[in-house]
Amino acid sequence: MTRKLIVGAAQLGPIARNESRPRVVARLIQLMREAKARGCDVVAYPELALTTFFPRWYTEDQAEIDAWFEREMPGPETRPLFDEAKKLGIGFYLGYAELAREADGLHRYNTAILVDKSGAIVGKYRKVHLPGHRQHEPWRAFQHLEKRYFERGDLGFGAWRTLGGIMGMALCNDRRWPETYRVLGLQGVEMAFIGYNTPIHYPPVPEHDHLQGFHNHLVLQAGAYQNGMWITGIAKAGKEEGCDLLGQSCIIAPTGEIVAMCSTVEDELVTAVCDLDRCRELKDNVFNFGLHREPETYRLIVETKGPVEPAPAP
Amino acid sequence: MTRKLIVGAAQLGPIARNESRPRVVARLIQLMREAKARGCDVVAYPELALTTFFPRWYTEDQAEIDAWFEREMPGPETRPLFDEAKKLGIGFYLGYAELAREADGLHRYNTAILVDKSGAIVGKYRKVHLPGHRQHEPWRAFQHLEKRYFERGDLGFGAWRTLGGIMGMALCNDRRWPETYRVLGLQGVEMAFIGYNTPIHYPPVPEHDHLQGFHNHLVLQAGAYQNGMWITGIAKAGKEEGCDLLGQSCIIAPTGEIVAMCSTVEDELVTAVCDLDRCRELKDNVFNFGLHREPETYRLIVETKGPVEPAPAP
Repeated sequence: MTRKLIVGAAQLGPIARNESRPRVVARLIQLMREAKARGCDVVAYPELALTTFFPRWYTEDQAEIDAWFEREMPGPETRPLFDEAKKLGIGFYLGYAELAREADGLHRYNTAILVDKSGAIVGKYRKVHLPGHRQHEPWRAFQHLEKRYFERGDLGFGAWRTLGGIMGMALCNDRRWPETYRVLGLQGVEMAFIGYNTPIHYPPVPEHDHLQGFHNHLVLQAGAYQNGMWITGIAKAGKEEGCDLLGQSCIIAPTGEIVAMCSTVEDELVTAVCDLDRCRELKDNVFNFGLHREPETYRLIVETKGPVEPAPAP
Repeated sequence: MTRKLIVGAAQLGPIARNESRPRVVARLIQLMREAKARGCDVVAYPELALTTFFPRWYTEDQAEIDAWFEREMPGPETRPLFDEAKKLGIGFYLGYAELAREADGLHRYNTAILVDKSGAIVGKYRKVHLPGHRQHEPWRAFQHLEKRYFERGDLGFGAWRTLGGIMGMALCNDRRWPETYRVLGLQGVEMAFIGYNTPIHYPPVPEHDHLQGFHNHLVLQAGAYQNGMWITGIAKAGKEEGCDLLGQSCIIAPTGEIVAMCSTVEDELVTAVCDLDRCRELKDNVFNFGLHREPETYRLIVETKGPVEPAPAP
């Protein structure tokens, strides 16, 4: 077993509203074959990689919403992706909308799975940090209704020994929260896969729109460095149903350096040789958690959700 | 009262081992006067701003060590700085080695204070994340004995209403830890002052030396953005007793953008107008903690100090 994991970040260009699952899966398989041809052990796709980013539209028609969700994974339309992975002997990370039938009824999550080289699902993550809003806000150029259409993930931030190392997952807005990376880092994660759909226009503060790319890399790079882990960030990019989505998919070293990056907003694969042993350069030294962390001073992080400001002067 | 705080980052060049306190204080006063002349409300100095960075030398002679510490603040040699601040009507942040005589005996801390425009100490911080090592390690080109010469700070990460906003403090290695910023951010901090002495050569992993400047800005910028706060990072810089210290002192906006930066490794003042109300652009939106944080999923951050890895496959 080698500790060098060759990773492909498989950015997707836009997915049209009326684009069928089989057609999208064909795009994914094309990228998977390219990844295999370039020596990859694993290929990582974006968040909600099977459909357009449907939270941009408001509807009260549950059937219309549920049409964007997968009832089983793999299902008839996604099975070819698993079959191809098994045939090629390549792992993958995939984001999709999950409709879960559980003992207490139906649940809807923004989900990602990790599949090993045998085509078996070895890990599942359900998005914790749901951005956006619950109600229709007509003043916005487009909606961001993740808080309406999804429940908060109930699985926490997991870590899995697979693909020769310790793997973690997160999704989109999770990447802005340092807690995400730290909970992964505290489980020894050596490679985190984080898919995203990030509109360049942020309606509440449009004067920050030009900073979307900077913020994307800033949080991914800081998360990698501060935890001594590799990070693969994978965008759904380009002008999708009139909405510009950020590209700049990238693979980031434990030093925080970007070692591969997409330069289009279309379907595009970039790859990197990721030596998982290099995590030790950080994890054993400047970020030797056992030696340097001081959790007693961190209690506020779990003891409050919102801010607790000092009292105003009397 | 205005919410625009004009801040001066007063970088220091090297302080020689034999440089007297009065001589250093004269340098600080010179920078304070320059800050006042440029309209500053507050001037921020580095960590251990009164002496050379003495943890680079090993000694077992406690008297030799204690000579680097202040027994009172202000004391006879630092009083002129307080007098000048009061006369000019300017606040300051200052790092120094503190020898505290407390009920249970003597304690030694790496400390910072915040002084308001009346010359009164309004806040004190004692460094939590002490880097380096406890024992003499002769293989190193120089020592980094903070864990030997200082106790871990016992005051936590405080926040103070002063200077027209909510102020926070940290020191040097604290800035690499996202928990530092988050505990400040959860107290509503709008401006954090962080002084540092950062050798460019890191003996355990010298192949990262060329990344010191990148890492310095990466963590400061991410901390500012992820908490919607201004950050002032202040270096003791330049070749001090043969050891190269990083410069690049900077003032960072809540967007994570560097808005002022030193370009020498000498005594140098840079200033910026910091509109504390701009914190709301982040704190009320993408980083609206009360709306978006999910503390139940963060418990590992306080429940473990070191990593807890998933069990190896059987």
